[in-house]
Amino acid sequence: MDGQYLPMSQAKVSVLDWGFLHSDATYDTVHVWDGRFFRLDLHLDRFFGGLEKLRMAIPFDRDGVAEILHNCVALSGHRAAYVEMLCTRGASPTFSRDPRQAINRFMAFAVPFGSVANAEQLQSGLHVAISDKVRIPPASIDPSIKNYHWLDLVRGLYDAYDRGADTALILDFNGNVAEGPGFNVFCAKAGRLSTPAVGVLPGITRRTVFDLCAEAGLSAVAADVSVAALKTADEVFITSTAGGIMPVTTIDGAPVAYGKVGAITERLMALYWKRHDDPAWSSPVRY
Amino acid sequence: MDGQYLPMSQAKVSVLDWGFLHSDATYDTVHVWDGRFFRLDLHLDRFFGGLEKLRMAIPFDRDGVAEILHNCVALSGHRAAYVEMLCTRGASPTFSRDPRQAINRFMAFAVPFGSVANAEQLQSGLHVAISDKVRIPPASIDPSIKNYHWLDLVRGLYDAYDRGADTALILDFNGNVAEGPGFNVFCAKAGRLSTPAVGVLPGITRRTVFDLCAEAGLSAVAADVSVAALKTADEVFITSTAGGIMPVTTIDGAPVAYGKVGAITERLMALYWKRHDDPAWSSPVRY
Repeated sequence: MDGQYLPMSQAKVSVLDWGFLHSDATYDTVHVWDGRFFRLDLHLDRFFGGLEKLRMAIPFDRDGVAEILHNCVALSGHRAAYVEMLCTRGASPTFSRDPRQAINRFMAFAVPFGSVANAEQLQSGLHVAISDKVRIPPASIDPSIKNYHWLDLVRGLYDAYDRGADTALILDFNGNVAEGPGFNVFCAKAGRLSTPAVGVLPGITRRTVFDLCAEAGLSAVAADVSVAALKTADEVFITSTAGGIMPVTTIDGAPVAYGKVGAITERLMALYWKRHDDPAWSSPVRY
Repeated sequence: MDGQYLPMSQAKVSVLDWGFLHSDATYDTVHVWDGRFFRLDLHLDRFFGGLEKLRMAIPFDRDGVAEILHNCVALSGHRAAYVEMLCTRGASPTFSRDPRQAINRFMAFAVPFGSVANAEQLQSGLHVAISDKVRIPPASIDPSIKNYHWLDLVRGLYDAYDRGADTALILDFNGNVAEGPGFNVFCAKAGRLSTPAVGVLPGITRRTVFDLCAEAGLSAVAADVSVAALKTADEVFITSTAGGIMPVTTIDGAPVAYGKVGAITERLMALYWKRHDDPAWSSPVRY
């Protein structure tokens, strides 16, 4: 940040930055696995798309940002990392409330890879609770701008913890399932996969599932997913850069089908990790 | 912050704080005018209410927070100030994604008093444009928790600038008028005042207008305010801690009534500022 590489403990943002005071910011997170970035191009596409929609400008092009991300990982030495690039509106030197007068601020960082599901949960499946909180609708905020507006998801998470679950799903404005804190959701019924279509982040791991399904000859669609459809699915899994494809075996205390990780989920998990050294989808960090 | 008083240029928050990365935070802002806090008790009530709803805890009670706010203003020396208290979820020492493991973080600061409307706009009235953006609905985020989720408002602001206006109003989920970036709105028709009832921040200045109306024998209600009702009102004004009661004389390029600041607005503005040295509503800063 500010042209310097710093230890995380020194990476701080001004309290007056609108990225903090108005959450006026966009970001993207790519992961590094075994020393390789996974689908970095797609993350850069989404990040630059968000910047444009928020009318922010940064003094770096795609190659410039990629170089900074490489440097963050190389300097941290992490072989498995969670690498975030972000831009805030910044602050105005004159305390002006006009966002056009703010100086946009780019920063990036690498931290150790983290997963929504821990090792045991990846093995036996997550317990998810469905909260009645409604994900901020697209009429308010375009979900294709990856953003930090998470209070609905955080509330859903507390609702889930109160009910003994590991994590939460919240609803869209029509009462269908939307997404969870940092992840999309898929279900499989009679061999066909579906994932919510509207009011959700167009996740890169979600997109990767569609790509893997196309290659594997599996049917996958984006469509309304009702709470009932999710609860009566044969298999359910969530997707996130933070963990990849992660099985869900319990919803609101009841097992999904037989309460075991399903065959399609296992197959997609294996395909997903296998592609992490494919040069078409990954690139080595320049340590 | 962190038990220290610092110049604003050194007031920085960790990039890893969930208050930044998830906008998982609540705040309140009180103003100081001519060396006196205005309605500090109401701001403390709302702040502590937000903390409770977000399940955050801080190591200070109301008196402790009030003392810190007094110190911020006294150390800055400002006679007219915008004084913000805030609490973020904080961060977990272990990088955990579980918000229950984060250490909540309180901070406060004083900056020079700022107003939504400048001197000329206070005199001749603001030009407001109505954007079709929808304010984040209560089903997603409880608006009584004062929060930093502003991307809908920021987008409304850019829409307004594009149309040559000074600031914006955005809609509620039913298509009625909701609020603008940092302010509530009132209109007067045939001597009766109304302000949007749902999906808006319960503003302290909004509340103050109700109190002043009760004392002055004016009728004021919280109710749905349609776009048409706003555009055909006799008078329109906005309310914010940042500026108080501020007249609106143009909406979407057309004048409100005769395009001049109305008599009720002028009367309420005068009453509002007059009460700033009333000991019932204000208290001297301990410089």
